[in-house]
Amino acid sequence: MEQILTKNYKIELSSINEWSLGEILQKDYPNSKIVIITDENSYNFCLESLLNAFPILEEAEVLQLPAGEVYKNLPLVEQILQVISEHNLSRNDLMINLGGGVITDMGGFMASIYKRGIDFINIPTTLLSMVDASIGGKTGVDLGSLKNQIGVFAEPKALFIDPKFLETLEVVQLYSGYAEMIKHGLIADANHYEELKKVRPEEVPGRLDLIKRSIEIKKEVVEQDFKEGGLRKTLNFGHTVGHAIEGMYLTKSPIVHGLGVAWGMMIEAEIAVELGILPKEDSNSIKEHILSVYPPLKLDSEELEEVMHLIQFDKKNKEDKILCALIDSIGNCQWDVEVGAELVRECVSNNS
Amino acid sequence: MEQILTKNYKIELSSINEWSLGEILQKDYPNSKIVIITDENSYNFCLESLLNAFPILEEAEVLQLPAGEVYKNLPLVEQILQVISEHNLSRNDLMINLGGGVITDMGGFMASIYKRGIDFINIPTTLLSMVDASIGGKTGVDLGSLKNQIGVFAEPKALFIDPKFLETLEVVQLYSGYAEMIKHGLIADANHYEELKKVRPEEVPGRLDLIKRSIEIKKEVVEQDFKEGGLRKTLNFGHTVGHAIEGMYLTKSPIVHGLGVAWGMMIEAEIAVELGILPKEDSNSIKEHILSVYPPLKLDSEELEEVMHLIQFDKKNKEDKILCALIDSIGNCQWDVEVGAELVRECVSNNS
Repeated sequence: MEQILTKNYKIELSSINEWSLGEILQKDYPNSKIVIITDENSYNFCLESLLNAFPILEEAEVLQLPAGEVYKNLPLVEQILQVISEHNLSRNDLMINLGGGVITDMGGFMASIYKRGIDFINIPTTLLSMVDASIGGKTGVDLGSLKNQIGVFAEPKALFIDPKFLETLEVVQLYSGYAEMIKHGLIADANHYEELKKVRPEEVPGRLDLIKRSIEIKKEVVEQDFKEGGLRKTLNFGHTVGHAIEGMYLTKSPIVHGLGVAWGMMIEAEIAVELGILPKEDSNSIKEHILSVYPPLKLDSEELEEVMHLIQFDKKNKEDKILCALIDSIGNCQWDVEVGAELVRECVSNNS
Repeated sequence: MEQILTKNYKIELSSINEWSLGEILQKDYPNSKIVIITDENSYNFCLESLLNAFPILEEAEVLQLPAGEVYKNLPLVEQILQVISEHNLSRNDLMINLGGGVITDMGGFMASIYKRGIDFINIPTTLLSMVDASIGGKTGVDLGSLKNQIGVFAEPKALFIDPKFLETLEVVQLYSGYAEMIKHGLIADANHYEELKKVRPEEVPGRLDLIKRSIEIKKEVVEQDFKEGGLRKTLNFGHTVGHAIEGMYLTKSPIVHGLGVAWGMMIEAEIAVELGILPKEDSNSIKEHILSVYPPLKLDSEELEEVMHLIQFDKKNKEDKILCALIDSIGNCQWDVEVGAELVRECVSNNS
């Protein structure tokens, strides 16, 4: 079993049968009610494995949420908390979040605000939530088209990952998580980026070493700067533009998060070149790799305007300036780089 | 100027002209946008004083919320956050909560979940929020009839109190805050209780010494146990029953919080006598004082059932047992005392 210790909890990376979840439930929650929050895919393909491995969970209340980012909002939070409240969960009870990023983001948020906070455990089932969403304590929901505008910082009591769950995913979900892994390489570890370039997203489920390295990078960054005062902002590389593209598509035909991030990294690398902080050959090589994996971005002029509008609302900005995390080489990233709206528009436009 | 230092921020208790709010705004928020959340009464009677004393706030965005506990819910939170988001408030901006307990509870919660947390300053304008609600980091909203079921622990950056604001209140609001002050005496300071017995609620605005002592008691308890693992539960004396009575009335004809607490203390003191932990003469003297200040409780059998139902849902319970904070003498309080539902019913019934 691979195990990664963070400051406050542990991440176990292994076959479900090796997880210490059973001991934790027995030791820390012997008389607690347990509610499992899950999505349709995880309900259909992962829940049974979980209940088989830990029969004590047979008594847990299972709440299946409607799938998709479009439901990640406060009205659904209120509805679910109402149900949880009717099950009379107390402050000493436990929530288990079994699912993708929407479930771990939203479940962590719900656990954190229910009765001012109950414990939760994350069991991510998608590549994106394994290497990114479920780690680092960011929880929350969207506000209209504004992604993760509402939320709190809160950490799970433990995190369990079985790469076998990845076999139940649609391929597009692997492409989504792969983008965040690429980001980890680009901002912090050139070698990780080079290793990732050698594999297609479809091959990642078999590469525990790459999954583990991505988790380590995320964890190391977060531990140095939990509340995102500085260094943690490097994890936003690709996200200023990427979130806006994702937000723009949200109400028409939603795209997976990683696709927005992949396009965002391509565009933000070009911004870094224009600002003279990244060599052009690095930007070219990133663009080449991204377009060898992902489809090209195509925006009409109305869509471009909406993307620009959403970028202004990004929560990472300060005093109406657009602040980006930008790499200055492959494997190193700066943050709070001020970028003019015109340059952003130009680079989005060049790449679409 | 009276000043109370807490671990993380200071409470200034003085005429508005002596507050250091101006320096704080200049030093810590020189380029920040500021939004002021307020209620109708505070908008009409306190906002002008605030803007006159601190002209820098003329540029702040003022959002007036509908008055009353019945609006303290997630749908209104979402609506207000939408407006705040449209004003493009960033993580470095500031919220000022000017109002009663609903405003400080709800404003603190909104500030804590907007972009995962922005700073806020509390300026309580009611006696209840001065001596209780705005101190101690509990923020949140109701979920249906369940009071404060949703929320987080979060502290303001500073807290300013001008007792002059109390002159703008309806008398019933002084009765509400007075109950929490009585509670502070009963759980922690017999002398404070005796001093309070000598004054009517109407006289409290002129008694800075009593207001200050109540704030100190609340602060001392909270600092020893911020997340309510033990000692802080003593502040819930009167609230297991009181919240349920208040919740029952919420949708028909709302009562002020303190009235529920006053009745709750009277009933819970009797529970403590029945359990043999409080001398009967103490309970009698508490009942006598409470009924000399507040009207008697009158519940019909349907209302009694609803109160009992709400008590089961109280977030302070554990594993379906009713856990109460009960005083064992005037000035000392135990917590997590297990009480049978039948005894609770009997004592509510005896007192109504």
